[in-house]
Amino acid sequence: MSVLAIGSHPDDIELGCGGALLAHAAAGDRVTMLVLTGGENGPDGGRGHVRRVEQERAAALMGAELVWGGLQDCQVVPDSATVRVVEQTLQAVQADLVYVHAPDDSHQDHRAVASATLGAARRLPRVLHYQSPSTLSFNPTVFVDVTAHVGGKVAALACHASQVEMSAMVEPDAVVASARHWGAQARIGYAEAFQPTRMVLDLSPVRRTPAETPALADLPAAWALVPASLGAR
Amino acid sequence: MSVLAIGSHPDDIELGCGGALLAHAAAGDRVTMLVLTGGENGPDGGRGHVRRVEQERAAALMGAELVWGGLQDCQVVPDSATVRVVEQTLQAVQADLVYVHAPDDSHQDHRAVASATLGAARRLPRVLHYQSPSTLSFNPTVFVDVTAHVGGKVAALACHASQVEMSAMVEPDAVVASARHWGAQARIGYAEAFQPTRMVLDLSPVRRTPAETPALADLPAAWALVPASLGAR
Amino acid sequence: MSVLAIGSHPDDIELGCGGALLAHAAAGDRVTMLVLTGGENGPDGGRGHVRRVEQERAAALMGAELVWGGLQDCQVVPDSATVRVVEQTLQAVQADLVYVHAPDDSHQDHRAVASATLGAARRLPRVLHYQSPSTLSFNPTVFVDVTAHVGGKVAALACHASQVEMSAMVEPDAVVASARHWGAQARIGYAEAFQPTRMVLDLSPVRRTPAETPALADLPAAWALVPASLGAR
Amino acid sequence: MSVLAIGSHPDDIELGCGGALLAHAAAGDRVTMLVLTGGENGPDGGRGHVRRVEQERAAALMGAELVWGGLQDCQVVPDSATVRVVEQTLQAVQADLVYVHAPDDSHQDHRAVASATLGAARRLPRVLHYQSPSTLSFNPTVFVDVTAHVGGKVAALACHASQVEMSAMVEPDAVVASARHWGAQARIGYAEAFQPTRMVLDLSPVRRTPAETPALADLPAAWALVPASLGAR
Amino acid sequence: MSVLAIGSHPDDIELGCGGALLAHAAAGDRVTMLVLTGGENGPDGGRGHVRRVEQERAAALMGAELVWGGLQDCQVVPDSATVRVVEQTLQAVQADLVYVHAPDDSHQDHRAVASATLGAARRLPRVLHYQSPSTLSFNPTVFVDVTAHVGGKVAALACHASQVEMSAMVEPDAVVASARHWGAQARIGYAEAFQPTRMVLDLSPVRRTPAETPALADLPAAWALVPASLGAR
Amino acid sequence: MSVLAIGSHPDDIELGCGGALLAHAAAGDRVTMLVLTGGENGPDGGRGHVRRVEQERAAALMGAELVWGGLQDCQVVPDSATVRVVEQTLQAVQADLVYVHAPDDSHQDHRAVASATLGAARRLPRVLHYQSPSTLSFNPTVFVDVTAHVGGKVAALACHASQVEMSAMVEPDAVVASARHWGAQARIGYAEAFQPTRMVLDLSPVRRTPAETPALADLPAAWALVPASLGAR
Repeated sequence: MSVLAIGSHPDDIELGCGGALLAHAAAGDRVTMLVLTGGENGPDGGRGHVRRVEQERAAALMGAELVWGGLQDCQVVPDSATVRVVEQTLQAVQADLVYVHAPDDSHQDHRAVASATLGAARRLPRVLHYQSPSTLSFNPTVFVDVTAHVGGKVAALACHASQVEMSAMVEPDAVVASARHWGAQARIGYAEAFQPTRMVLDLSPVRRTPAETPALADLPAAWALVPASLGAR
Repeated sequence: MSVLAIGSHPDDIELGCGGALLAHAAAGDRVTMLVLTGGENGPDGGRGHVRRVEQERAAALMGAELVWGGLQDCQVVPDSATVRVVEQTLQAVQADLVYVHAPDDSHQDHRAVASATLGAARRLPRVLHYQSPSTLSFNPTVFVDVTAHVGGKVAALACHASQVEMSAMVEPDAVVASARHWGAQARIGYAEAFQPTRMVLDLSPVRRTPAETPALADLPAAWALVPASLGAR
Repeated sequence: MSVLAIGSHPDDIELGCGGALLAHAAAGDRVTMLVLTGGENGPDGGRGHVRRVEQERAAALMGAELVWGGLQDCQVVPDSATVRVVEQTLQAVQADLVYVHAPDDSHQDHRAVASATLGAARRLPRVLHYQSPSTLSFNPTVFVDVTAHVGGKVAALACHASQVEMSAMVEPDAVVASARHWGAQARIGYAEAFQPTRMVLDLSPVRRTPAETPALADLPAAWALVPASLGAR
Repeated sequence: MSVLAIGSHPDDIELGCGGALLAHAAAGDRVTMLVLTGGENGPDGGRGHVRRVEQERAAALMGAELVWGGLQDCQVVPDSATVRVVEQTLQAVQADLVYVHAPDDSHQDHRAVASATLGAARRLPRVLHYQSPSTLSFNPTVFVDVTAHVGGKVAALACHASQVEMSAMVEPDAVVASARHWGAQARIGYAEAFQPTRMVLDLSPVRRTPAETPALADLPAAWALVPASLGAR
Repeated sequence: MSVLAIGSHPDDIELGCGGALLAHAAAGDRVTMLVLTGGENGPDGGRGHVRRVEQERAAALMGAELVWGGLQDCQVVPDSATVRVVEQTLQAVQADLVYVHAPDDSHQDHRAVASATLGAARRLPRVLHYQSPSTLSFNPTVFVDVTAHVGGKVAALACHASQVEMSAMVEPDAVVASARHWGAQARIGYAEAFQPTRMVLDLSPVRRTPAETPALADLPAAWALVPASLGAR
Repeated sequence: MSVLAIGSHPDDIELGCGGALLAHAAAGDRVTMLVLTGGENGPDGGRGHVRRVEQERAAALMGAELVWGGLQDCQVVPDSATVRVVEQTLQAVQADLVYVHAPDDSHQDHRAVASATLGAARRLPRVLHYQSPSTLSFNPTVFVDVTAHVGGKVAALACHASQVEMSAMVEPDAVVASARHWGAQARIGYAEAFQPTRMVLDLSPVRRTPAETPALADLPAAWALVPASLGAR
């Protein structure tokens, strides 16, 4: 399986679904991170270079491939150009599952990235939204067990030292507490929580041959899909 | 994986998640159906015996084990006794995943079975709700691809001849149309749609040894979960 | 058109949809009121008889037929017996449209009557929910213009003197204020507001002969509803 | 009645409410279609001219007047200029009822057209939202019976050959399946489904003279809207 | 201010709003706890007596008055008798604010107590719902800062040793984690989270004399509340 | 307490929360109004100057400080520049509580101001949304008693003569009616209604010393937040 995680700025992905990505990597899935801006306007005083290096280190630690979107921090809009940037990566990695910001978020970049991703992934059967510190309404129903990966998630976040130490929005202990909170909601230990736009489950391991299932044509007329009353003459 | 599908009356389960159960069976999962009443008050004029035989035939066709709940049609209430009936089957089959009616339904038995199941499955990480013809609000976000199993689902439903031919609520062609409708929503062919109470994904095939992930103890103090300010002396 | 309004106690219907019923009567529709209990436990100190007489006077003033459900005040439960009471009146008047309490209400009788009505009206294409003073969440999207009927609504409510003068829940001026509030939401003068379970619109005055619309059979194969890929052999 | 249907691109309106428009036309209502862009960026490789001709043919087949909004495909934004375009048509046709995209949609043009229409129609008592293949959350409660018009809807859609044959988002059989799915939800045959922003019902055929209803001034003081306690001296 | 917290079983209140109650007590408010059942069916094997003693100790530790409802564990129903039990305590303590279970809960007692409380408190301007481990949907928007009271909350919970040690639903570390999680949502340290049915804010410290505000009677006619067009002759 | 009310145009704030601001002023709170545009495009035909003078008079009447945002009427967008305008006033007045438009509104400026305020106030524990005549979905749960301030609110609105007399969206009598409607919902007389993004309650009058609460360290190991199973070596 090919998994694509999309975030607006360096460290958004780690905060939102770092544990799930580690679980995917551990399960043998291909993991790609698309970071749309360099986070130049973050609390590091324009040290865009520093944040890029930090992001590269975190991706390496997580066993993920890193792709930069080349957009401008705090200036992302959900127009057709942004949609195209996401589409290109979706196609390049042949993504089966996308993780992205929840749509209702107080940061304009997060809203724009969520919207553009929903546009780009309009034909994809699996789109899950993660929570950011600035997310507003969030009603998760899908969870990933990250009990074995909380340490790894924290380590990946710790790569973003310039951000974590200076931003009032990232609170390290709250990251661990939320994982435990969602774990209790999911009836497991530690979890990351996701709000699905749509999630097609994969039940595939073994498969009977289709010939074993009865044929529609053998069934009573009542089951016909286009009854005469529709006027299909 | 052990899958338990729960319904109030004969044919409820087939209508709501028959295709998904066929997909589970095809994937090698153990499938159990718990039918809480015999449907004695259905449109067959009290032919409870007929409906039981029909249900047994349908379960056999789907490769599922059938369990009867022994409750009375149209008299199910979500009290501790009903919770216990569901709990016993949950434990007997060591269920990993439960399918049950959506909670907002105009039939009192459906509401009661959904409530009692949520009580019985309070510690289970995977509970999905299916749609019945009498379901009211329903916002599915989780889907199962049943393109290969629509024929089988219709065949299972056709076992319930006494009900299908006489009830104004079961419309055979609408069953197929809804599967196509949800399939379009899920960006696949034919689908069954589910509203999750909670759904922990299984990402497990391969697993790295936990030793590879960094230890929390090696991280900066900022990540400590119980800061001094909490007053933990 | 035959309209059936259903309420738990005397005066519930007038409060919730009295203006709409007057508008229906003015438009020539048949209007029936089903009052499920006699309101014996209301603030009139067991004067059940008084409340029944008041209800009969109000129904007469509104040009509506009155049916009593015969249930016990404060003891209504949404079981199959209550469903049957509502079903009988639905069938007797051949209702096209039902008005009933909103489902989320702090009074147990209101909740029970809403539930039982949804069960009884499970095959009816038009079910609208009105707001009571004890209604909790309420998100109306369908409105009826009652600008010409606010006076009539207030007059009908004034018939229920024993209740209005003694209950802390019925505030006469708030009734008029809410009609103006909902009128502003509906972009008209005064309105009653309804939350639809389902509302099929009637667009019928004139009708072309069906022969004028193209036949499905003349369309390209892509439009066929059951593609070969479904396995319908 | 004057009905205005608004869509972002050629074929959006037919997909979303083509059956309802045919029902309106059959009932003698005036029907206008406002298509805001020419769909130049669609899957026909810039054949904007082709799509315009197709749209004109479909409108003619549906007995509807066609108005072009003159905006640019994939570049629609919900600003005051777009609001003005919609306002002008609303006023020109003196619309009583508007059909438009649902607000939560993964296509930026669809979101923008829904937003701009809600702004332009801010004083209109009837605004209904239709579902597009790219619509995300959608909770319809208002329905139109299109059993007699499914053939006509499909014929109108078939006019858009360049789009239907080349776009992965338009699936012909899913159009018919969804009409049947919503029909089952509405307890009728085939239906189109709508999410109302607000819908004032028309109950008008016959009307009593207002003089027949009691006058507010004749009622007890308790019903006065501005009690002395408000401080209205 | 008089605060009433209502729970189904011993320890429900401490889990849901123990920190807020400690904050109320610290602020000088009167705090009462109404525990409706003795928790006889809990995991302590019928040691109802033990649970009662534990509850009394916890209430004492929190500076709260304790009232027992006398209902039967696992058998609570939201009927008029249960409503009356809650009404009596509401009146006895002249409650200004009520804390109670959230309505959507998988435990039948929790649902019943929430429903009965909403009925009993139908005229009360302040009703807040707390989260239990078995709560299902929960969308809190009102928070209380419990940073200074997490230690006290844990101490109160530790009084319920028989329950905490034996129930799989109460996970001590998750209690603290959730407080931190909700604190991050509330933009403070540690918080308890509440879903309001209604919450009238108290802005009262100082108050101007009403004579200082302009009189309605001095305003233009346009502001009159009952326009002539309403027919109030 | 410092209260900041934010609106897009002159009179938006008075309509949405004028009564609450008067209540805050009466309680001794500092009240500031930030009006982001001059309302140049309003129904007064470009008399921006007139509207500014009206707004100044209304602010004076309400005892509030007035700040102008300097943006262009009908052209507000929720970008980083608008966020900065709001941030500056938030910091200048050290706001404890913000009132702003509800996010779901048919006017593009209202949506933009709500979004930008949520961005600017991302670290603020108290953000309440008020209803405008153009607000769409609105589910208020927090209320302020304005029974003593309805006269003052109407007087403040009457300052905006150029707008009130010429705009079809502002209906004077509906303002009073809505206050009574929400008052009935809040179980008080007249109220303004608010939808909270988050609202931390203030319970502070008296406060025990933190030393009185038990220490976490004295509690059983089960309460430790980072169990060994997390792998914190």
